[in-house]
Amino acid sequence: MAEEKYVYEFGVRTDGNAKMRELLGGKGANLAEMARIGLPVPPGFTITTAVCTLFSTTGRLPEAVEKQKYAALKHVEEQVGRKFGDADNPLLFSVRSGARESMPGMMDTILNLGLNDRTVRGLADATRNPRFAYDSYRRFIQMYGDVVMEVHAKDDHSADPFEEILDAAKKKAAVQFDNQLNAEQLQDVIGHYKEVIRKATGRDFPQDVNEQLLGAIGAVFRSWNNERAILYRQKYAIPADWGTAVNVQSMVFGNMGKDSATGVAFTRDPANGENVFYGEYLIDAQGEDVVAGIRTPNPIADLERDMPTVFAELTNVRQKLERHFCDMQDFEFTVQQNKLYMLQTRNGKRTGFAAVRIALEMEKEGLIDKKTAIKRIPAESISSLLVPIFDDEGKKKAKLIARGLPAGPGAASGKVCFSAQKAEELHSRGERALLCRAETSPEDIRGMLASEGILTSRGGVSSHAALVARQMGKVCVVGAATLEIDYGSRTMKVGDLHIKEGDELSIDGTAGEVFLGAVGTVPSEVNQVLAGTLAAEKSSIYASYACLMGWCDECRKLRVYINADSPRQAEAGLCYGGEGIGLTRTEHMFFEGNRIDFMREMILADTEENRERAVAKLLPLQRKDFIGIFMALHGKPATIRFLDPPLHEFVPHDEATQRSLAQKVGIPLEKVKARVHALQEFNPMLGHRGCRLGISYPEVSRMQARAIFEAVVYCKSNGVPVHPEIMIPLVGFVKELRHQVNIVHEIAAMVKDESGVNFDYMVGTMLELPRACLRAGEIAEIAEFCSFGSNDLTQTTLGMSRDDMGSFLGRYNSLEIFATNPFATIDKEGVGELMQMAVERARKTRKDIILGICGEHGGDPASVKFCHSLGLTYVSCSPNRVPVAKLAAAQAALEDSRSR
Amino acid sequence: MAEEKYVYEFGVRTDGNAKMRELLGGKGANLAEMARIGLPVPPGFTITTAVCTLFSTTGRLPEAVEKQKYAALKHVEEQVGRKFGDADNPLLFSVRSGARESMPGMMDTILNLGLNDRTVRGLADATRNPRFAYDSYRRFIQMYGDVVMEVHAKDDHSADPFEEILDAAKKKAAVQFDNQLNAEQLQDVIGHYKEVIRKATGRDFPQDVNEQLLGAIGAVFRSWNNERAILYRQKYAIPADWGTAVNVQSMVFGNMGKDSATGVAFTRDPANGENVFYGEYLIDAQGEDVVAGIRTPNPIADLERDMPTVFAELTNVRQKLERHFCDMQDFEFTVQQNKLYMLQTRNGKRTGFAAVRIALEMEKEGLIDKKTAIKRIPAESISSLLVPIFDDEGKKKAKLIARGLPAGPGAASGKVCFSAQKAEELHSRGERALLCRAETSPEDIRGMLASEGILTSRGGVSSHAALVARQMGKVCVVGAATLEIDYGSRTMKVGDLHIKEGDELSIDGTAGEVFLGAVGTVPSEVNQVLAGTLAAEKSSIYASYACLMGWCDECRKLRVYINADSPRQAEAGLCYGGEGIGLTRTEHMFFEGNRIDFMREMILADTEENRERAVAKLLPLQRKDFIGIFMALHGKPATIRFLDPPLHEFVPHDEATQRSLAQKVGIPLEKVKARVHALQEFNPMLGHRGCRLGISYPEVSRMQARAIFEAVVYCKSNGVPVHPEIMIPLVGFVKELRHQVNIVHEIAAMVKDESGVNFDYMVGTMLELPRACLRAGEIAEIAEFCSFGSNDLTQTTLGMSRDDMGSFLGRYNSLEIFATNPFATIDKEGVGELMQMAVERARKTRKDIILGICGEHGGDPASVKFCHSLGLTYVSCSPNRVPVAKLAAAQAALEDSRSR
Repeated sequence: MAEEKYVYEFGVRTDGNAKMRELLGGKGANLAEMARIGLPVPPGFTITTAVCTLFSTTGRLPEAVEKQKYAALKHVEEQVGRKFGDADNPLLFSVRSGARESMPGMMDTILNLGLNDRTVRGLADATRNPRFAYDSYRRFIQMYGDVVMEVHAKDDHSADPFEEILDAAKKKAAVQFDNQLNAEQLQDVIGHYKEVIRKATGRDFPQDVNEQLLGAIGAVFRSWNNERAILYRQKYAIPADWGTAVNVQSMVFGNMGKDSATGVAFTRDPANGENVFYGEYLIDAQGEDVVAGIRTPNPIADLERDMPTVFAELTNVRQKLERHFCDMQDFEFTVQQNKLYMLQTRNGKRTGFAAVRIALEMEKEGLIDKKTAIKRIPAESISSLLVPIFDDEGKKKAKLIARGLPAGPGAASGKVCFSAQKAEELHSRGERALLCRAETSPEDIRGMLASEGILTSRGGVSSHAALVARQMGKVCVVGAATLEIDYGSRTMKVGDLHIKEGDELSIDGTAGEVFLGAVGTVPSEVNQVLAGTLAAEKSSIYASYACLMGWCDECRKLRVYINADSPRQAEAGLCYGGEGIGLTRTEHMFFEGNRIDFMREMILADTEENRERAVAKLLPLQRKDFIGIFMALHGKPATIRFLDPPLHEFVPHDEATQRSLAQKVGIPLEKVKARVHALQEFNPMLGHRGCRLGISYPEVSRMQARAIFEAVVYCKSNGVPVHPEIMIPLVGFVKELRHQVNIVHEIAAMVKDESGVNFDYMVGTMLELPRACLRAGEIAEIAEFCSFGSNDLTQTTLGMSRDDMGSFLGRYNSLEIFATNPFATIDKEGVGELMQMAVERARKTRKDIILGICGEHGGDPASVKFCHSLGLTYVSCSPNRVPVAKLAAAQAALEDSRSR
Repeated sequence: MAEEKYVYEFGVRTDGNAKMRELLGGKGANLAEMARIGLPVPPGFTITTAVCTLFSTTGRLPEAVEKQKYAALKHVEEQVGRKFGDADNPLLFSVRSGARESMPGMMDTILNLGLNDRTVRGLADATRNPRFAYDSYRRFIQMYGDVVMEVHAKDDHSADPFEEILDAAKKKAAVQFDNQLNAEQLQDVIGHYKEVIRKATGRDFPQDVNEQLLGAIGAVFRSWNNERAILYRQKYAIPADWGTAVNVQSMVFGNMGKDSATGVAFTRDPANGENVFYGEYLIDAQGEDVVAGIRTPNPIADLERDMPTVFAELTNVRQKLERHFCDMQDFEFTVQQNKLYMLQTRNGKRTGFAAVRIALEMEKEGLIDKKTAIKRIPAESISSLLVPIFDDEGKKKAKLIARGLPAGPGAASGKVCFSAQKAEELHSRGERALLCRAETSPEDIRGMLASEGILTSRGGVSSHAALVARQMGKVCVVGAATLEIDYGSRTMKVGDLHIKEGDELSIDGTAGEVFLGAVGTVPSEVNQVLAGTLAAEKSSIYASYACLMGWCDECRKLRVYINADSPRQAEAGLCYGGEGIGLTRTEHMFFEGNRIDFMREMILADTEENRERAVAKLLPLQRKDFIGIFMALHGKPATIRFLDPPLHEFVPHDEATQRSLAQKVGIPLEKVKARVHALQEFNPMLGHRGCRLGISYPEVSRMQARAIFEAVVYCKSNGVPVHPEIMIPLVGFVKELRHQVNIVHEIAAMVKDESGVNFDYMVGTMLELPRACLRAGEIAEIAEFCSFGSNDLTQTTLGMSRDDMGSFLGRYNSLEIFATNPFATIDKEGVGELMQMAVERARKTRKDIILGICGEHGGDPASVKFCHSLGLTYVSCSPNRVPVAKLAAAQAALEDSRSR
């Protein structure tokens, strides 16, 4: 058997291509592809993701890797005409991670590898630039010390030891920037760096270049499992077993003087999607300087002035990349002594706004087809078109205190927090936090997640803050340079304005503006158009929304229903194109006005007769509700669920309300208390609720059925079409369902008889218990439709109460016990299998049974796709999730080979 | 296609046989069988159970029945030489129910059918016995009025209207018994009866004999669904769709004078199993008189004196029946003018005591083989050999107030209740009730179920009380004639002793004795022998027990383990032959002595360090517990489950204890309160418990693993073999298991290293969540054994909390929503399917994985059989359920065609 190939080369000889991202990671695959299409890529090689998995398990690299790596290295030496570790003109390498999906800033990188006390002199001689050589060596030791030898700040409050030394040197030399230190001063810094390493680790910084390379490769593989990488994977549902590749690439230098530069660019604006060349660069700098946000880089347009030839070449590259990859690209380049090198390209992360715009415009431009456009927009993105925006009037009145770069569109207000911890703290108290930092770093991720918006005083649109905000869909303004943040006193100065931690600010991430105080918001443009307060032709955002939704409606197979408990909610969902109601929780209606009193009277009744009397008072109110809903739906299906929650939720628990209730109903307080006490349950989720209530108190089911059918009669008599579907909750045994269905049929017959009006209706059930899924075949003999109650089904299948899991969820997340949060995305392996069994069994009994889902998963894109794969008829979700669900449904249909 | 056969004849022409009980019911099949073997059976026919199901659905009899019934009726007329409805010498019929399984007294019966104002005169002439004829007519009208025309007492407090008329007539005639009324007086009674019916129903008592027959057949079919029949089916898990057959049989009369009689007999004593002819009869009476318990019948032995020829014939029948059916028979006979007729035979219901004795003795006699003997003893029976008995000394000291017939062996004490309702009321309050009635009737079933024992002043060993008590396994004494019960004043007189409702009595159902007050008990003879306080050879009960258990051990495939949390419990289970521990709940150990303080300290700790310190205090105590258990087991498997319940269960909820805890641990009271509050959960069953605790607090798992392994080292060092199996609870995700298993292996390695002692152990998990069952294949990659936690698995699969279902269980039972109580017997259709999937998947991964069950179902015979069919390795149950489980396991193996 041939030896497995673990190392893939790129350069003159290129083994890989863009399709091999599973094996080579995104970066490695695209380096290979760029080399293939003739872009100037410094040669190197990629160690595959398969090695990462082996390394994680055994802690060692397979032997074959060593041999293949050696061969590849020799090829690179031949191409560049220099040797690794050569004392005269050494070949240097960068070592970078590269996972299948980009995980920016999550894993470690080492540059300038191959320098040591000997080769640094060779580099100095060969480049005739000792300052450059020693600066490169200094950077290398710093990165290697941090990443491989794990020399870090003692704690969160201490400074990084290397930065400390560098700052001291700058102070001593009385200069502001690193590149102002001369060779001797840098040598001094290097000496201190080595000492710090020796002190912290008890070992010397390694002089053997092969040892350096091995160490760096190992460290990159190890960084796949560092805490922030794990957290990132959780958020983006990236499986831990994908692993990362390692890219070893010959170094080129953007920091060899004024004729050198480094930059990051996007083929279009990743924040708003506009078709402009977008990016930034720094003259005489290495790549990390741009992303780290230490020096604020120049906008890419300025490069035309600084390096006109290179700019022209780059404009050409921009076009070539988009035409070749047919997607917006985010690429890194370095200019070494006026020669352009491409270091990376990938599909650019973009905001939801940008995702929609780019996809639609590329389709118009003929770069992609409609299907590709739909598939390319993350379903979640569409919600960014629907979130409230700042009120123009409010903005005019508010004090504009600073401007920065718009890096994440939207409107956010919150209390200023100068640390990620503080933001998390506020968030956990239910307050809105606005994270304000000079710059952000991967350590701030949790705090960024917890914030409404992110504001930085330094860094450009490709800084860490901008990058992460883009991906998280956070409102973000970066590089608001007039802000002077003082972490020590936890205050911020803007001109002569002093802002304390906790003060309120607002940021407009679309315009790049910062306001004092909380600025009022208005509905999104889309919602304004839907509400008729804005003319459709005045909003390009609405136009994008409408176009995309139109496309989705053409190709999706799943119907999208709404969970709505009132005519108002129903209308909100219908606006977005909801095709019916998948869930009306009748109990929500019981909390309005004085209805709760009748409900309580019903619960307190100790005879069926008294209960009937109380229930009778609820009848006209419920009927009115249903009329409202039927009117709003005008013939679209209306799925109404019978009373579901335990009665305990309806009774008062404080003595004052109990006393007033006792007076109202005319029974002793003690009796009220006793009844409230009797209703307490150990595990109410598993208690007397759902159809169990309707079975214990059939008069309640009778009342609800009557209210529904009388509403139907009213609507039909007024010429409004109605399509009612009655849904029995929490069925586990077919006899439960039969009992309730009999009541429904009996009341329907009575109402038809009384009114002389004939009408159609359906009766079905929820599948929300494991037993119901197992017995779906039998249940489908009676049920005309079934809807998965995926919230309860998840709780029972996992034996895990969503309300109680907070106490261990953090721990579970950090241990990666869940592949994804099972209450956000359907747990396919567990709950999903039960759903699949239920679908098969129900369909076996009743071939064309209507099957849907009405848990919160109905609005989650991954779950919607799973529902499509199960062949459900519809998903039902909150009104504002309808567009997301439609987009996900369309994508599922397009990805499904059966439908093509 | 041939018309379906709905009617089967018996007599000279016999269509059926004993094997056709599914179709003909037990009574019909055995009537046919008796006819076949030449016993004197009055001819008749059986309408099949299939008709019952059709009748239930449509409310009508299929047309084919009418035709077949007519043909059969004609055949009967030919055989007996009389005609149905003939005015001169009318043929009369009895109409009786007959289900697949005997359901004594649960359904309705009608005798003397075919009498009307005309035929009664013919009967009077033909028999030359007008008194007999009018008495028969009177009885017929009464039954028909009750059963078919539904003329009943107004409510529970009123007398039966027919009995009222009869009592008035007896009073008027100044006689004591019915048979002392003469023909004229009876005609008077008949007149009143007809009037009562007309008044109550607005219709006349029907004179058309065919209308009578049709009405009676319909009523019997309908009675399959009366409330008490449903209740009975629930208790004995008889499916509702079995239905009953109807037997129409030509009447013979035991009430034609002194040369006539009717009786009920058993081929052996059904109470204690002794091989004696056992039964009772009444001269000049109809069958119902014996069972109803109105007149106390004579013991069967007296028949030798009253009717020597008949007695000899009957002794012959007794032998013939046992030889033919190879089981103890319960039969009914009637002597009409010195001629013996057999009306019914069936396998006799017997007490647990009797079941064991009869099976063992029949095996010895060669009537049956060992396997049949084992299969024939209801597994539950064996527990009756293990229940405490009255202390001889206590009995000597107690006041013996009455004697009756021993109808249900055992010892029972409780508060006297004169009504079934009262008994239910006491029982629901957790008090022990003793039901005292002159006689019992089917309406008393719920009260009988709720009582410790049953005592009647009238009726014999085949009275309703005796019959039902036998089947329920209740302690029972019947016919204690010296008791004078006065329902009105709710008191009872015995000699000059007055007993009020609520006073305490004791009854010895083995000896037939009634004592004043509560007599002390001692362990059963079996337990005395096992404890060494009674010599084995002195107890025939022990001999039976030991013999049977020996047989079971020979043939069962399932191992039987014990659930034991202490050495004492372990020993109790080992005494009964438990083969290891299937579940040790370590948390139970935390409640003893001052351990709870350490546990609480651990819970209150806010740092890992403080938690470690508290946990360290628990270590030596747990180690000691485990040493005790390992010593008791001496090398038998010991399955120890890690901490399972939510921490909330360990903390104090009253302020006083909270205050003292705060002082002990040295933290503010407020902090204790806050922690207790924080631990409260909405649904603790689905909360922070099971392995979730061990994952949140790995130091607890480490401590428990260490305590176990140090105990192992201690035992091994002292020459005691140990076989520990560590069980991780509430696993739903394989990563949860892996996390805990890693801890276990890590600690094992440490303890081996520290002690220098090597040892084996296993690590496994509970399968108690639906998701765990679905993922069993993956779980089995890590788990070396799995044990179904069927309690939690049932709760989650059904979404039903055992603690909260009380509020709707009554309603569910009356609607027959559960086939059987899913918390008593495994819900095969739901939970069972998940178990089966888990078994298949786990075995696919790990072929010889050890699989068991340790929920309470492990001691339930039906569930044990299901576990056998799944191919589990063991069942684990409470110590005192071990014999039941062994017997059930043996039966399962014998019934399993794969093992034969």
